[in-house]
Amino acid sequence: MVKSRREATSTPQDDWAALSPFERAAQFRELPHGKAEDFFRELSPADQADLLAHLPLAERRIWARTLPLDDAADCIQASPGSLREELLGYLDEPARREVVALLAYAEDEAGGLMDPGYARLRPEMRIDEAIAYLRRQAAERVGMLYYAYVLDAQRRLIGVISVRELLAAPAGKTVAEVMRTDVVRVSEHADQEDVARLLARHDLVAIPVVDAEDRVMGIVAVDDILDVVREEATEDIQRLGGTQPLADPYLRTSLPLMIARRGSWLGALFIGEMLTASAMGRYEDDIARSVVLALFVPLIISSGGNSGSQATTLVIRAMALGEVRPRHWWKVLSRETLCGLALGLVLGGVGLARILAWQGVFGSYGDQAPQLAAIVAMSLVGIVLWGTVSGAMLPFALRSAGMDPASASAPLVATVVDVTGIVIYFTVARAVLGGVAG
Amino acid sequence: MVKSRREATSTPQDDWAALSPFERAAQFRELPHGKAEDFFRELSPADQADLLAHLPLAERRIWARTLPLDDAADCIQASPGSLREELLGYLDEPARREVVALLAYAEDEAGGLMDPGYARLRPEMRIDEAIAYLRRQAAERVGMLYYAYVLDAQRRLIGVISVRELLAAPAGKTVAEVMRTDVVRVSEHADQEDVARLLARHDLVAIPVVDAEDRVMGIVAVDDILDVVREEATEDIQRLGGTQPLADPYLRTSLPLMIARRGSWLGALFIGEMLTASAMGRYEDDIARSVVLALFVPLIISSGGNSGSQATTLVIRAMALGEVRPRHWWKVLSRETLCGLALGLVLGGVGLARILAWQGVFGSYGDQAPQLAAIVAMSLVGIVLWGTVSGAMLPFALRSAGMDPASASAPLVATVVDVTGIVIYFTVARAVLGGVAG
Repeated sequence: MVKSRREATSTPQDDWAALSPFERAAQFRELPHGKAEDFFRELSPADQADLLAHLPLAERRIWARTLPLDDAADCIQASPGSLREELLGYLDEPARREVVALLAYAEDEAGGLMDPGYARLRPEMRIDEAIAYLRRQAAERVGMLYYAYVLDAQRRLIGVISVRELLAAPAGKTVAEVMRTDVVRVSEHADQEDVARLLARHDLVAIPVVDAEDRVMGIVAVDDILDVVREEATEDIQRLGGTQPLADPYLRTSLPLMIARRGSWLGALFIGEMLTASAMGRYEDDIARSVVLALFVPLIISSGGNSGSQATTLVIRAMALGEVRPRHWWKVLSRETLCGLALGLVLGGVGLARILAWQGVFGSYGDQAPQLAAIVAMSLVGIVLWGTVSGAMLPFALRSAGMDPASASAPLVATVVDVTGIVIYFTVARAVLGGVAG
Repeated sequence: MVKSRREATSTPQDDWAALSPFERAAQFRELPHGKAEDFFRELSPADQADLLAHLPLAERRIWARTLPLDDAADCIQASPGSLREELLGYLDEPARREVVALLAYAEDEAGGLMDPGYARLRPEMRIDEAIAYLRRQAAERVGMLYYAYVLDAQRRLIGVISVRELLAAPAGKTVAEVMRTDVVRVSEHADQEDVARLLARHDLVAIPVVDAEDRVMGIVAVDDILDVVREEATEDIQRLGGTQPLADPYLRTSLPLMIARRGSWLGALFIGEMLTASAMGRYEDDIARSVVLALFVPLIISSGGNSGSQATTLVIRAMALGEVRPRHWWKVLSRETLCGLALGLVLGGVGLARILAWQGVFGSYGDQAPQLAAIVAMSLVGIVLWGTVSGAMLPFALRSAGMDPASASAPLVATVVDVTGIVIYFTVARAVLGGVAG
């Protein structure tokens, strides 16, 4: 059960997404064995599970045993309940025990991502002894070999040395003399996003996962984290776009599931947007008196929605990257207030110019053109400022309520801002037109 | 100039973002040298350049020489023109030549990301000779050591072997006997997103970069790609949110630049949205006759915008991940047509129920309530379908026009759909009310 990483292969998986599970199984069974093995290992756990479910029993057993332990655990996790016990049954006893231990971790924590096969050294070893010891480990149980971790007699992590450093070190020195002692490590229950941040920040190729006693349980390698980073970004993007994240690639998500995922959010937003009709209803008489007021409602509320969606997007991404933390809320608030004010003044100015120009050229807005221009310009400043500030603060509010800040999708912000935008616009209108309409 | 990857350190850079360049330089100069070196290397190229610019000359020289060649090239690229020549001058002659060669590549192509220090072997070497040869290379010029590449007499790439496989192989075999020959490689001008996709798909830790004659120029390691993947996702997210991408972290972007980046898009969208006022103007008489029509405009157009933003977000992300390709446009169009129709029917049904319920309970909409309910329901079906389909197709259209599909931001789609949504809504209204209003 040695884990060997993908060194090569160039099987194109391009069209795989478009095939039915049965076509996939049939194509897979036609591959020559060497290709098939690489191909199988490179599939995502969900694809592996799906493929296994559509293979004959005898082949299923062979392929289940091919996977390294951490990948086997992921594949079993991705399998339907009925297949899980069967797949576990194909493993030999020690492998099954390790896989069952891995299955106990949540999928998105360090323990659920780690590979238990890592290289270890003792601090008192001489470099040439250490290399010889590493050669034995490489042949037996080590998966990714980039660092060797130095453990004390209680298996606690005391140092690290990269294979390059080990190979480059003079044969007569000891491991303790050349190892680094300030090792970045993560707890077995660390969230995968934190693991990704640590790997990226420290340019690490792998990070050791330790238990409460600082004993190394396994390592998380950067290539596994690369998938995590792509998946997390995909989820954030889908949430920002106002969809519940899809677990599968776009073309592989069934149409009913797609409609359910999108419909749930779209329906919720729609119910929220209904408040715009109620809000507009409160100003029905104002519209009846000055129909021209209604013409600018879409422009006004969409400007608030767009500025809110900018602000929320920037803040959510900065939070996901760890650039902005909850304690920065005050800094963000003051920046966004200035930014929103500046943007509002620009749009308000353009809006003012537009109305006065149309009035000058076409006489579009009758006697009330100056008042209308003032109403549009002033409410644009207010609404863009409000949209920007509320868009920027919503992720902080969600986070402090214990929710994922990325749920503050652009459409959600737009909905909030639309309703309040209508109130702002007509309040300004009443104030300006008060004398005229009364 | 040996490249040693970050094995450790846990200096918190958390507050670095909030400091001024002068405070950063002062804090940096107080670090003990060992910590300072790790800290410096872990900074982004832009941060390194910024820090160097604020250090005294003598220290600048020391730190410029500390960097591995590929990182030195990135740092010099990120420096202002005045500093570039100076920094190049600090390197010794062979290093300067390599850095100048790296600077000739675009920042976002494989050549611009690669590290020229990779491990090489000859196919006829015995395994124990190969290990001894690798130890010499490790001490001299190799950066990331995970794979050793096997080159023929013309320095062309003919195989690869991981260090783990090499250490695990029997001493008497030859490299040619244990190497893999189907090596995944990229051209020096490959786009960084393609490099990221290949690394992720094949679970590789590094990928060799070759020239037109298949000679290895260097390697791109996955930890460098991790940064690329995070940056690309950030850019896509910012574009989707309707902002020109920011080059720096949120809190480090100056307020004027932030306003410029956001204002340019916001202004463009605003000018687009002005068409809504013109569109509404065409229906001023209809609104004057039935003010109640105006009340539902925000609900109607935001539903189109939200469904369009969902569709465009899903398609753009699927394109970025390589799941959806240009030739899939027909498949996407048919899926989105069905999806848009289903979502439109759901929202139309809810809208119908809402109006009839309000009418039943409050009598809000007078005699025309049944017609109004029909107008809202029918136009919701049309607008959600239209929003979904145009949101899904816009990225394909942009791509076939040679633009980045991710420029189809959610606010852009919303703007397009808002204008057409108004036309659809009032056209339906005229058709339904024709008899009544005439």
